[in-house]
Amino acid sequence: MSVELVSKTQSFDGSQCQYRHQSSVLGCEMRFSIFLPSQAEKDQRFPVLYWLSGLTCTDENFSQKAGAQRMAAELGIALVIPDTSPRGDDVADDESYDLGQGAGFYVNATQAPWKPHYRMYDYIVEELPKLVEGNFPVSERRAISGHSMGGHGALTIALKNPGRYTSVSAFSPICNPMACPWGEKAFAAYLGADKTLWEEHDATVLVGRASERLPMLVSQGEEDQFLEEQLKPNALEAAAEAAGYPLKIEHHAGYDHSYYFIATFIEQHLRFHGDYLLAH
Amino acid sequence: MSVELVSKTQSFDGSQCQYRHQSSVLGCEMRFSIFLPSQAEKDQRFPVLYWLSGLTCTDENFSQKAGAQRMAAELGIALVIPDTSPRGDDVADDESYDLGQGAGFYVNATQAPWKPHYRMYDYIVEELPKLVEGNFPVSERRAISGHSMGGHGALTIALKNPGRYTSVSAFSPICNPMACPWGEKAFAAYLGADKTLWEEHDATVLVGRASERLPMLVSQGEEDQFLEEQLKPNALEAAAEAAGYPLKIEHHAGYDHSYYFIATFIEQHLRFHGDYLLAH
Repeated sequence: MSVELVSKTQSFDGSQCQYRHQSSVLGCEMRFSIFLPSQAEKDQRFPVLYWLSGLTCTDENFSQKAGAQRMAAELGIALVIPDTSPRGDDVADDESYDLGQGAGFYVNATQAPWKPHYRMYDYIVEELPKLVEGNFPVSERRAISGHSMGGHGALTIALKNPGRYTSVSAFSPICNPMACPWGEKAFAAYLGADKTLWEEHDATVLVGRASERLPMLVSQGEEDQFLEEQLKPNALEAAAEAAGYPLKIEHHAGYDHSYYFIATFIEQHLRFHGDYLLAH
Repeated sequence: MSVELVSKTQSFDGSQCQYRHQSSVLGCEMRFSIFLPSQAEKDQRFPVLYWLSGLTCTDENFSQKAGAQRMAAELGIALVIPDTSPRGDDVADDESYDLGQGAGFYVNATQAPWKPHYRMYDYIVEELPKLVEGNFPVSERRAISGHSMGGHGALTIALKNPGRYTSVSAFSPICNPMACPWGEKAFAAYLGADKTLWEEHDATVLVGRASERLPMLVSQGEEDQFLEEQLKPNALEAAAEAAGYPLKIEHHAGYDHSYYFIATFIEQHLRFHGDYLLAH
């Protein structure tokens, strides 16, 4: 599995790069971004925080707007930022912003016309980490975070893969996709009518079934325009409490759904993950 | 002079807002962004750092990509980020990215078809500060900074207006526009053939004529793709040295012309300006 450099720029003494590669899981060419801190020693290997982005995003939004490199450089954590869906002219798409390209929802589609390419779950869990760990100076210590649709992806992927991540966090996640318009539309399209399959990708359901107690941090803005209809953090909070799951959820007065919210609290999230990623 | 709110979002406990207003100097509607830190006391007034952006930018690039709000909030400095030219369907434009809309070069045009609207110098020096100081909780202590074309704007405007700014800085500025393709093209179009008029907007010339010794910091990346042909920091450095002007210029190995460079060193620039803006 090889990667091809698209762009490289220096940031906080480390390197912010964009790569492309042929994804066998997704059956198309994909791009991802990676930030690697400056290496103090030549054989230094960094733990990795995977960042899953939200609807309409690519690997560039978080790279450019979150300001995460400063604290990642200071702590010695690599950042890996995948795209949000398979891409290309022969990949199925939809006119709406919340289905198709840019809206993969981190599931493996079982339905036409999505089935052949839309396997973002396997891509994030299996293929991308193998690619990253085979090509860059990183360790196999992984954490995962994301925003909105990507917050949903981070929470569900961490909950479904015990032992794979040291910690999980999310900004403004879609907490209960089975019960919101974004999730209902995407799950019906990608997974079909059988809602028992939907449960496998719903953080509010999965938190009640989890065998592992992973450190989990969720940040939510109280002025988020999607809070009531789409995100439903209270459902996750109630499910976590019922299950005795140690979810730390913070509600921040005044903040909305934008990257300005993420930029404000990304230092806290990186320090949170650093406590586990860097622990001996 | 009134302003109309376009958007408002919370950032680092402060507010990041976009406003529009009718500019009498430019004869068109203009937008600008402003970041105001959270007010500890109700009558608190913040000093202002004006940020001038580079070619093709609007008020949004610096707002979204520089990560400046964190340190501005911590220090208690407001950020004002104007657009880079007059705008609108009846404002002259050019097909190239380095002339016309998005490329005002912070001068007052004397030539057709630019003359009626392209008065960015007066807008930045006079109209915008009056508007900001009349509508927001800011003081009359001002500093100025910018990137590339905006670095040229910051340096020349500060050098031409003794007493108006406490300090000036620039990232990757066009230091000697009379002697580079970007500057020659823009000055010929906006100012005409008489090069004595060009000298009035060339930092390398002005630094030798300056009566005031303003704290001045310039940051330049050594991997900047425009370094040799367009930016020419060595010309400014030599002129400052010949004039005994206390320019602090830093050359950073590995860094390019992008906002990743700005994000890496914006904290240093804000602390530099803070030393003067916040001095009693």
